[in-house]
Amino acid sequence: MSVLVVGSIAYDGIEAPAGKVDRTLGGSATYISVAAAYFARPVRLVGTVGSDFDKKDLKFLKDHGVDLEGFRTDESGLTFFWKGKYHDDMNSRETLDTQLNVFEHFDPVIPEVYKGSRIVCLGNIDPVLQLKVLDQITQAQLTVCDTMNFWISGAREALEEVISRVDVLIVNDEEARELTGESNLIKAAKIIREKGPKYLIIKKGEHGAFLYSEHSVFSAPAYPLSTIIDPTGAGDTFMGGFAGWLSWSDRISEENLRRAVIYGSVMASYCVEKFGVERLTALNRFEIDRRYDAFRKMSVIPERT
Amino acid sequence: MSVLVVGSIAYDGIEAPAGKVDRTLGGSATYISVAAAYFARPVRLVGTVGSDFDKKDLKFLKDHGVDLEGFRTDESGLTFFWKGKYHDDMNSRETLDTQLNVFEHFDPVIPEVYKGSRIVCLGNIDPVLQLKVLDQITQAQLTVCDTMNFWISGAREALEEVISRVDVLIVNDEEARELTGESNLIKAAKIIREKGPKYLIIKKGEHGAFLYSEHSVFSAPAYPLSTIIDPTGAGDTFMGGFAGWLSWSDRISEENLRRAVIYGSVMASYCVEKFGVERLTALNRFEIDRRYDAFRKMSVIPERT
Repeated sequence: MSVLVVGSIAYDGIEAPAGKVDRTLGGSATYISVAAAYFARPVRLVGTVGSDFDKKDLKFLKDHGVDLEGFRTDESGLTFFWKGKYHDDMNSRETLDTQLNVFEHFDPVIPEVYKGSRIVCLGNIDPVLQLKVLDQITQAQLTVCDTMNFWISGAREALEEVISRVDVLIVNDEEARELTGESNLIKAAKIIREKGPKYLIIKKGEHGAFLYSEHSVFSAPAYPLSTIIDPTGAGDTFMGGFAGWLSWSDRISEENLRRAVIYGSVMASYCVEKFGVERLTALNRFEIDRRYDAFRKMSVIPERT
Repeated sequence: MSVLVVGSIAYDGIEAPAGKVDRTLGGSATYISVAAAYFARPVRLVGTVGSDFDKKDLKFLKDHGVDLEGFRTDESGLTFFWKGKYHDDMNSRETLDTQLNVFEHFDPVIPEVYKGSRIVCLGNIDPVLQLKVLDQITQAQLTVCDTMNFWISGAREALEEVISRVDVLIVNDEEARELTGESNLIKAAKIIREKGPKYLIIKKGEHGAFLYSEHSVFSAPAYPLSTIIDPTGAGDTFMGGFAGWLSWSDRISEENLRRAVIYGSVMASYCVEKFGVERLTALNRFEIDRRYDAFRKMSVIPERT
């Protein structure tokens, strides 16, 4: 199944206890596409960059198998730039700089050939733009949406409409609480699913993730990493692995959704091992599958005796 | 296999968002024994209470199948009393009152017939007393130990000796970090296991638990409860379910340790559903096993396709 990805393409400056990088390829659409392209063909990217976008980054995306018909270069300005700093425990970060640049005027126009994409990934962007994307697609079998606190508090009405229209919502535990005003995640999940999404994924960082569906809850573990270099993009990478693997599997079932959550977790666990997308540029399916098996082994509860 | 439990027996006063109780049976040895007695026979309790200990609580322990040959009533004073308050998110609590009473002079004398117990549970008490217990037992197949921040900072030397001598250490994530000065749990686990324990369990509250052994890590989910009434004793109950089930299984293997962690989690998930030990007084093995199965179902990762 084809995968359509709409989101930001950016350059990131990242400071973390392990070091710093001044400028590395980032953005939600980048992470999602790069992760998804390990599984799905085609992966179609809709996003915009500025005149400073590096040819080698464009070449990397192409060589990695990302379809760029929906990729636009806006020569009137620079690429979206974000700079952030992670603190010692890696669980909190502060934004040091945000320059929206050409991303400020991003208007997701979906190329004709993309409109029939079967899996649609709405990266974390203004929900008003996410709605524009939903309005243009025609044959989606699964729409998957990410968001963040910024939109929950700042663009609530549009976000609620997005949530009512997508099949899978992916949020983290804090966002689930903020979205519902309910601190208990089980209750929060119920409230969110009643807003529309058939499936809800709540990411809990180092504590794994929950997948809620009509008749079951799936508790996915996190991979026990002894070193986390850079968490930037881990959530987007999760979405890319999730949607990409589902696309490859060609069948949306309860079992496959569980597998997809683990593939998403696998890709996210690789993502944080190096700065930016670096670790995601040189994986292979064999090692990805091996880590999937490690997740399984780690969480096997033997049958009762 | 016989189970020996040494720890505190107390009356607790508990305030929580769901209500309050002024005085209810508590203490680490109580929770451990009550949970273990659903599986193991005999469960042998060593602890001390004061002149105010209620006959109906004694009768409850007896009727529940707890062997009380090591149970002492010290008429010179009152039973250990603790009073605490839980805040809205249930993750933080403050101690409002602690009256050690006769527990201050608790000296765990292990009755002759208890010395050959095969599984020994050292509840959360002064590590100096835990060492005294270890010195008296002769045929333990598995020693299981709990502790808390108070002893990590206040009785470090004795605690380190305990840790070097037990087979299973159970701590929560904060305690693991405090014990090692290492914020990454994987690294902390490695450091702790090098101190001696063959198995290490790190409890993460609503996020489940890890079991670390020489060749594997087991990630156990938590049961998704929509209502938590009172977390008091959940950790002790976990230990009781863990040790009790292992005793019932009669074989200490990697597979059984995983099952025991889930049975511990099952018992803890029941514990928090009502105040004090109330929910633990009227369970049956059938419903316990059903919840075990629910844990399994929730965490099944299908094989790769």
